[in-house]
Amino acid sequence: MPRGFKVIQGSVTAPLGFRAGAIGCGIKNPEKKRLDLAVIASDVPAVTAASFTTNKIKAAPVKVSQRHMRTNGIRAIIVNSGNANACTGSGGIADAKLMARSTGAGLGLKGEQVLVCSTGIIGVPMPMARITPMIPKLVTKLKSSGGDKVAEAILTSDTCEKKIAIEFSPGTTPIRIGAVCKGAGMICPSMATMLCFITTDARIDRAELNKATQAAVDRSFNRISVDGDMSTNDTVIVMANGEAKNRTIKSGTPAAAVFREALEFVMLKMAKAIVRDGERVTKFVDVQVRGARTYLDARKVAEAVANSLLVKSSWHGEDPNWGRVIHAVGYARATIKEELVDIYFGGLAAAKNGVAAETPLPRLKKVVEKNEFTLTIDLNIGTADHNVYTSDISPEYVDFNRSEYSALNVIP
Amino acid sequence: MPRGFKVIQGSVTAPLGFRAGAIGCGIKNPEKKRLDLAVIASDVPAVTAASFTTNKIKAAPVKVSQRHMRTNGIRAIIVNSGNANACTGSGGIADAKLMARSTGAGLGLKGEQVLVCSTGIIGVPMPMARITPMIPKLVTKLKSSGGDKVAEAILTSDTCEKKIAIEFSPGTTPIRIGAVCKGAGMICPSMATMLCFITTDARIDRAELNKATQAAVDRSFNRISVDGDMSTNDTVIVMANGEAKNRTIKSGTPAAAVFREALEFVMLKMAKAIVRDGERVTKFVDVQVRGARTYLDARKVAEAVANSLLVKSSWHGEDPNWGRVIHAVGYARATIKEELVDIYFGGLAAAKNGVAAETPLPRLKKVVEKNEFTLTIDLNIGTADHNVYTSDISPEYVDFNRSEYSALNVIP
Repeated sequence: MPRGFKVIQGSVTAPLGFRAGAIGCGIKNPEKKRLDLAVIASDVPAVTAASFTTNKIKAAPVKVSQRHMRTNGIRAIIVNSGNANACTGSGGIADAKLMARSTGAGLGLKGEQVLVCSTGIIGVPMPMARITPMIPKLVTKLKSSGGDKVAEAILTSDTCEKKIAIEFSPGTTPIRIGAVCKGAGMICPSMATMLCFITTDARIDRAELNKATQAAVDRSFNRISVDGDMSTNDTVIVMANGEAKNRTIKSGTPAAAVFREALEFVMLKMAKAIVRDGERVTKFVDVQVRGARTYLDARKVAEAVANSLLVKSSWHGEDPNWGRVIHAVGYARATIKEELVDIYFGGLAAAKNGVAAETPLPRLKKVVEKNEFTLTIDLNIGTADHNVYTSDISPEYVDFNRSEYSALNVIP
Repeated sequence: MPRGFKVIQGSVTAPLGFRAGAIGCGIKNPEKKRLDLAVIASDVPAVTAASFTTNKIKAAPVKVSQRHMRTNGIRAIIVNSGNANACTGSGGIADAKLMARSTGAGLGLKGEQVLVCSTGIIGVPMPMARITPMIPKLVTKLKSSGGDKVAEAILTSDTCEKKIAIEFSPGTTPIRIGAVCKGAGMICPSMATMLCFITTDARIDRAELNKATQAAVDRSFNRISVDGDMSTNDTVIVMANGEAKNRTIKSGTPAAAVFREALEFVMLKMAKAIVRDGERVTKFVDVQVRGARTYLDARKVAEAVANSLLVKSSWHGEDPNWGRVIHAVGYARATIKEELVDIYFGGLAAAKNGVAAETPLPRLKKVVEKNEFTLTIDLNIGTADHNVYTSDISPEYVDFNRSEYSALNVIP
């Protein structure tokens, strides 16, 4: 953790002037026992930055939120889990708008001041009969201690809540950043829906917030979305409501640099938590590529290795199989020279100059037996680098993902 | 099967003038109980075409065979399973050359007249002490009935032999084509080593054999190698020795068209057999994309869907999950319009215009319950099409692939 940063309680309601809450309305299961609908609201209009999926199939809430982002004065986010409202046609758009409008009505806002997010099954209409009646009830129960309920309500196949809040002082006034996210599902090749909501009471220039958000997303969530693509619903939203009353943070200032460091710290924590919580994952692996001719080459190699099922299977088996790694390096379509490639597990050389190194395999195996390790690939033909955070794959992953439609009783 | 084609016995020794044999020399296991070294030889020099891996990491036998292909008069192939002789440095090159030279010596040929292939573990030196002494013994035992032993000797994780031979008459003289291949391993994303050896007694012009081979590979093996990449060792070799004494087949003639049809038929049979024999595979799926704006778009979409772990898992679960399919369509980086996309399982509409179609899910589920089915994606914005043959993925696949180095006792 960077010097001067302090972890505090409360996730998205840790920053001043934010309230949140969640309710179970029976989207995930008819008994309403699980929280599946949540609202985060700022007491005042918040400067807001967002990053949405690059998938060409975009869920209705993404389309609606992208439109609402064109207006200033965003005040709230409504989010549900259990249904993605994706591939649901014009009815889906109407449903997403209705969710925003109902939330706005309860909070005394216009619908355009509310962003909408959904995560869950694709291609099934939203059960609006269960959702709409609950929104008025939900918005009256928002609390400045309600952030952690949001962390719970957005989970789908996640096994644990993912949340954080920090306090730091970019100038003389302390400010706070809080976050909740969900991810799990399958991280590679990036078909899990990833949602991340970040609040801050910083007073910050809109242009700087946009730049800081994009930079932090590039260093965090875009390094777990290993093929550069995203699900139909992926969304990162950062709301800055200025309630810390600090001097406005502007681009190019020391305060902006500190804020960027803090935002990246928070996003990276969330991104890594998503990988660790991947469906039935047992290993967290940082795949580092260096010595590439170009940045794009470094990225292609890191993603090819991180995406290889055979490599992931060998990690699961705690097998220091550098042969499968170099195999993937070879098909990554990057410029490489076989006789220059070095591969390290946890800093120990497994291959040097494209052939087996002298490190005894039992020593390499000890690295792969750890829950977390670094795999380094040095192409030795340039100076560009890139890294990807990824995981192993387990037999249980496949088993878990076999039957979504059936499990959700979509098939009678 | 095309009209006039007849399946016959004998695989690579069904064509006239070919002999073959195999032996166990302890590469796969010390007890020498499994065949792991094989030779195919032509009685006379054969016009030979070959297609090698596009992986930038190429195994030593691939490099040596590519060089030998520059000389005419190829007479034989030596192949081993159990060790890929890949990432083995200059020692590996010397080993591959020695295998060719020893085979040539036993057959009265120059080393350059022999092609070399290997499949198995990467990064471990070839156990030449076990191989070299056995080659003289092996080459004296080649028989005109020995083709099927080759089919057995090249297997690694394959569960069954893959072989075929056909007879047909492109002109007045009947000719024969025989084939053996191995594949299994993981078919997508194409990290299995695929070897295919094809013999024919056709007398055929070298340029036409090259063209026919490339065309057939493009329609068969390149449609299971779903991301267009290949393993370090992949090799297809076609030897035509002219012993059928037919009138020489030349480009642009009716006989050439028939020969191309026959060669494609044989390769497609082998390619499909490889997919069916994928490690722990239970479903064979033909992913067909049509209505794409360009051929490249059609290919990107077919490969994205065929490569998606979530899609493959849902097939394994017999879940007609078109949501995951359209999800993958969306991240394929092809030009699409969500509201135009149609998806069919076995010809039954699952989605029309980007939203759920009216076909009841139980009817779609019946299609996915079959061992073989077609998934059709119509983008409805153009006329280009492409298809990929692929499979589901099972939990057993991951389990099976976890521990290669350990299982082979490379780790003491």
